[in-house]
Amino acid sequence: VIAPARAFVALVHHPVYDRTGRIVTSAVSNLDIHDIARVSRTYGVGGYYICTPVQAQRDHVGNVVGHWESADEMATSRRVEALALIRTVGMLEDAVDDVRRACGGRPFVVATGAARRPGSLAAVEVRRRAAEAAALLVCFGTGWGLAEEVFGAADAVLDPIDAGSGYNHLPVRAAVAIVLERLLAG
Amino acid sequence: VIAPARAFVALVHHPVYDRTGRIVTSAVSNLDIHDIARVSRTYGVGGYYICTPVQAQRDHVGNVVGHWESADEMATSRRVEALALIRTVGMLEDAVDDVRRACGGRPFVVATGAARRPGSLAAVEVRRRAAEAAALLVCFGTGWGLAEEVFGAADAVLDPIDAGSGYNHLPVRAAVAIVLERLLAG
Repeated sequence: VIAPARAFVALVHHPVYDRTGRIVTSAVSNLDIHDIARVSRTYGVGGYYICTPVQAQRDHVGNVVGHWESADEMATSRRVEALALIRTVGMLEDAVDDVRRACGGRPFVVATGAARRPGSLAAVEVRRRAAEAAALLVCFGTGWGLAEEVFGAADAVLDPIDAGSGYNHLPVRAAVAIVLERLLAG
Repeated sequence: VIAPARAFVALVHHPVYDRTGRIVTSAVSNLDIHDIARVSRTYGVGGYYICTPVQAQRDHVGNVVGHWESADEMATSRRVEALALIRTVGMLEDAVDDVRRACGGRPFVVATGAARRPGSLAAVEVRRRAAEAAALLVCFGTGWGLAEEVFGAADAVLDPIDAGSGYNHLPVRAAVAIVLERLLAG
């Protein structure tokens, strides 16, 4: 297994699909800021990248994190500890570059999505390949999912979560929790 | 493994602790209604009980579900399919009774929490015991977690999620996703 500190999460807001199949830039959700930070902290990941080309949205994320950091309350300290994992970048490529700098080598970049795709890898295989790489970067799409070009640029695609029910309409924050359990749990 | 259709989720709003350790009735969160319904549907569970002794809160849940059922849009159909799993009851015991009636025998009742407790069981052991029971009911606390009496009345306590990081401050909706992955994934 890769050391969790060398695993990173990227939440992509562009390019993603909207419900009609158009490529859009989705808005950052406060909920995804908090929930995914807490899940990332639980699994000990090295960082959580929020990727959006909209500067005002990156500023908003910084304000949310700053708000909690300045709250100075014991009751919020564990929340701050999770939010400290957040880095804002414009595009996924910026996250890849940042991980490369931090870990001394290109991360193994894995795209995720709800649809089954030819050549996708089981979690056990992603774990094996990640263990051989300098780092692992797992990418999640907001809106109606990552655009085709993100899958094309990734090193691998993870099998969809599909728990056998045929239902694959999960909130992205739940998908992150399940995928980190599959890729990082001891 | 137990058939997922014989597994049930209970989200308990009373008795739970608040941040000061007092026993309270927490408010139902819209987010927990939706996210936990979608995760439950993904794993194919038989039902999702929202337990609160406050009738107005149970009515609120019914209104939310009814709102989406009447929306009559293709885009919301998968959401409705998840919300259809929701049953509102007053107390956890009512959920236990309802599962007993539906499955023809008392469910194996498992309590969950963030703190490590003596005698708690690993997921693999809960899977084994659940497979021998008529049904499985997994109970999650809102607020600052299930009151002691809920642990006392349960048949077993699941090991905390603790992914090795020492951090255990997860949103309950993320905990449900991870626990269902551990107990029900094939």
